[in-house]
Amino acid sequence: MPAISKKALSMPSSPIRKLVSYADEAKAKGKHVFHLNIGQPDIKTPSQVINRMTNLEREVIEYSHSAGYPSYRSKLATYYQGIGLDVQNDNIMITTGGSEALLFLMQVCLDEGDEVIIPEPFYANYNGFAASSGVSVKPITASIEQNFSLPPIEDFEKVITSKTKAIVICNPANPTGYVYTKEELDVLRELVLKYDLFLFADEVYREFCYEGTPTSVLSLKGLEDNVVMIDSVSKRYSMCGARIGAIVTRNNEVLSNALKFGQARLSPPTLGQIAAEAALDTPQSYFDEVIVEYKARRDYVVKRLNAMEGVVCPIPEGAFYAIASLPIDNAEKFCQWLLEEFSLNNSTVMFAPAAGFYSSKELGLKEIRIAYVLNLSDLEKAMDCLEEGLKVYNKN
Amino acid sequence: MPAISKKALSMPSSPIRKLVSYADEAKAKGKHVFHLNIGQPDIKTPSQVINRMTNLEREVIEYSHSAGYPSYRSKLATYYQGIGLDVQNDNIMITTGGSEALLFLMQVCLDEGDEVIIPEPFYANYNGFAASSGVSVKPITASIEQNFSLPPIEDFEKVITSKTKAIVICNPANPTGYVYTKEELDVLRELVLKYDLFLFADEVYREFCYEGTPTSVLSLKGLEDNVVMIDSVSKRYSMCGARIGAIVTRNNEVLSNALKFGQARLSPPTLGQIAAEAALDTPQSYFDEVIVEYKARRDYVVKRLNAMEGVVCPIPEGAFYAIASLPIDNAEKFCQWLLEEFSLNNSTVMFAPAAGFYSSKELGLKEIRIAYVLNLSDLEKAMDCLEEGLKVYNKN
Repeated sequence: MPAISKKALSMPSSPIRKLVSYADEAKAKGKHVFHLNIGQPDIKTPSQVINRMTNLEREVIEYSHSAGYPSYRSKLATYYQGIGLDVQNDNIMITTGGSEALLFLMQVCLDEGDEVIIPEPFYANYNGFAASSGVSVKPITASIEQNFSLPPIEDFEKVITSKTKAIVICNPANPTGYVYTKEELDVLRELVLKYDLFLFADEVYREFCYEGTPTSVLSLKGLEDNVVMIDSVSKRYSMCGARIGAIVTRNNEVLSNALKFGQARLSPPTLGQIAAEAALDTPQSYFDEVIVEYKARRDYVVKRLNAMEGVVCPIPEGAFYAIASLPIDNAEKFCQWLLEEFSLNNSTVMFAPAAGFYSSKELGLKEIRIAYVLNLSDLEKAMDCLEEGLKVYNKN
Repeated sequence: MPAISKKALSMPSSPIRKLVSYADEAKAKGKHVFHLNIGQPDIKTPSQVINRMTNLEREVIEYSHSAGYPSYRSKLATYYQGIGLDVQNDNIMITTGGSEALLFLMQVCLDEGDEVIIPEPFYANYNGFAASSGVSVKPITASIEQNFSLPPIEDFEKVITSKTKAIVICNPANPTGYVYTKEELDVLRELVLKYDLFLFADEVYREFCYEGTPTSVLSLKGLEDNVVMIDSVSKRYSMCGARIGAIVTRNNEVLSNALKFGQARLSPPTLGQIAAEAALDTPQSYFDEVIVEYKARRDYVVKRLNAMEGVVCPIPEGAFYAIASLPIDNAEKFCQWLLEEFSLNNSTVMFAPAAGFYSSKELGLKEIRIAYVLNLSDLEKAMDCLEEGLKVYNKN
């Protein structure tokens, strides 16, 4: 039997999905599982999107342009202009989700053995894209005590070498919910200019900000050649399955080279693009309602968590995630136990163990990531499960 | 300005799409362009697919399982069983097009610097997937004089080294239309066993076979751990834009490792999967009509080509491509000239220069790939353009 690659062996499993088989077993036994492990919102996709699909007038579901439909790129540029960003349609390449955007950027901007700096905890799949590109991740640890704000810039400078090519941030952040201030971004700006690095910013949670408006890296002056923004319709319009994202940059060389990778995979999904273009007609009232809903969920979850003995959860200002530290020996063991052994009213709750969001070993071992993507009634039951689960688990 | 990667610089542009800007300019000037450069069929997507989309009853367009919807995988397994292949649903992982299937396989089975053998000319994007995985392609040249049949097995053995991990074939073949015989596949089988290699077979054109039925690598005995089949709905149901493909293998280690790459990108497109599942209800009469149509197109195009002075085109037995050798100095120059300078009745024709389908330098420089994906009336006009174009070009 031929051997598989070292790259495949080094590829991490998704911490968000690695316990899925235990959840499947629990469900097969008739137990209800509250899924707070994955950022799959229960929020309805805008009716504009569903209506567009049910009125699909196409005879052939064809390839689109490799960079995406010109009509969609143009409408998307208008959306960016509407939030104050100077973006034209030729600054945009449509991708198969934000995932492909980051994968392409790793390949366009970094070679095997090059290094990328990422404040941790970070969205775990960044590890996967780095591993599949042969790129080495250099984590800088953000601490739960400091609400996961930007670590001191000296920490970044300490790990910069001749192989460092880029910094990746997620803002608002998955998995911490932290929103970087303009001042923090200005500090990063100086660093990026000083060492002539790329700055990739995953801004897919832009609309989910509960205290003010986040600053886009595209608004930072003098970084036109350094900055690339990664976007996605997945969360904004609750249409994760569309698999439509974008690379947005004023650096033409990055974009034209990303297009070569885009040509190799032919085109982003046509049906998803039609849906995403329709999504741009979503009225503001949709977002207003969604934000009210998520803010209420956040407030409820954070309050419940911090009221549990030994649990610490900083207040996230954006996205729909929170990281909580639990009074347990090991979060992965606990999360698996919740699925395999525990139930309350024939239900249990599933979280993502936070260790998988850290690149440094031995960090986050007692932390979980909570995606507050269920309605308040379900969140209440899920928090009841956690509270009771902690008591039972610690008695064992 | 930070430098982009060597990998990006080495990434080839798609020969199928690289002349697109010239085509766009021609169209902007009001010239009609017959697109025989790209495998985008004009055949209608089955009504079962369109009807499924217009009856979409979903409130949330969610992620699917990273390996694809279980219901779709199960129905797809039944389709394979129907064509005599022993495939179960857990032998299948759904991918974002056949493109992603091959990209994942390159990453799962080969490390940076490893080698893959591919008979050339081959589907040009294999070069792209290899380049983006750091894998080295070792081409074995198939000759137009031998109708692009399997090159002598000694040619394969000559290039096998300790770094050789896999052989890739496309059957029926893009870009040649050649269909490998059972005897040729048996010869490959021996080679694969002798050196314990992977054999990846791109079988997306299975239904497009004009003289008999093609043999799937999945039917070769004793290759359960070596063989991986790549599939796609793009051509079968004329739904290229759905971006739904599959990895099919009895090698569980390959599949479980491919799933890690699949988890990193979350899920294949949901809307495309819904469409693809509906496509499996397409009646046989649809394919019967399509095959009659393509056979007529093939016969017409090949006859016209071979009737042109100095043009040589072997008869393709499958897919909807043909490679023709032209009496010109350089096919890329000629193809660009057709778009920029030439017109007949205010129309012109676009082909893919075949050099991009060869990995060896200096091969195929006078050849073009023709995708006969237009109706007979358009093909007639396109062939008129080519015939007249050759005369005018060679007078200049």
